Amino acid sequence: MDLDIYFRKGPLIPAIVIDAADGEVLMLAYMNRESLAKTLETGYTWFYSRSRQALWNKGATSGHVQRVVSIYGDCDDDTLLIQVEQTGPACHTGNRSCFFKPLLPPGIEPHQNGKEDDLS
Amino acid sequence: MDLDIYFRKGPLIPAIVIDAADGEVLMLAYMNRESLAKTLETGYTWFYSRSRQALWNKGATSGHVQRVVSIYGDCDDDTLLIQVEQTGPACHTGNRSCFFKPLLPPGIEPHQNGKEDDLS
Repeated sequence: MDLDIYFRKGPLIPAIVIDAADGEVLMLAYMNRESLAKTLETGYTWFYSRSRQALWNKGATSGHVQRVVSIYGDCDDDTLLIQVEQTGPACHTGNRSCFFKPLLPPGIEPHQNGKEDDLS
Repeated sequence: MDLDIYFRKGPLIPAIVIDAADGEVLMLAYMNRESLAKTLETGYTWFYSRSRQALWNKGATSGHVQRVVSIYGDCDDDTLLIQVEQTGPACHTGNRSCFFKPLLPPGIEPHQNGKEDDLS
């Protein structure tokens, strides 16, 4: 399999990880060519830690591993979408998903134009 | 609202866009501080195009706009998750989602080691 197409723009590609059970977005992390190859080889997610500059087998220490169900590339081959069976919480904080900090919570209109929405 | 926390690691933050109707991941694009501010101000997604080095109002030419429903930041403030009401397909190819190119389709075991998984 030619993995080079995913690293044309740079050495790292962002990988969105979603729960195979319900499609919830769990986290985003980065892969280099080696971590993508190891993910494909082992069937569990491997990433590249930008801060530690090292490969990182998700869940290796916490036990919260991610078994890969599918991987899709996007239209221009610069992002991956990885469907996983997640063991335990995906986030190191203990949250199921890393996306728990509302910047704009649902129901708050970003534009204060008084328009009422009726999209339940 | 202090947007600076999202740009501590660099001038661009990846934004995962999901469909508010069913949670499907539609695309990933990048925001700079100005495009995030415009997104919050207008209630529609604005991104920063790395190739054109310019702000980009999603759907401005195609009509396939994205009305923002919610925005969440992740645990370490370096990724955004944006829930939208998508008009038309999100992908410029005409696909609903940009993630339509299987690298590892579901049902194909990445590791050919004969191990049976039992993680339901």
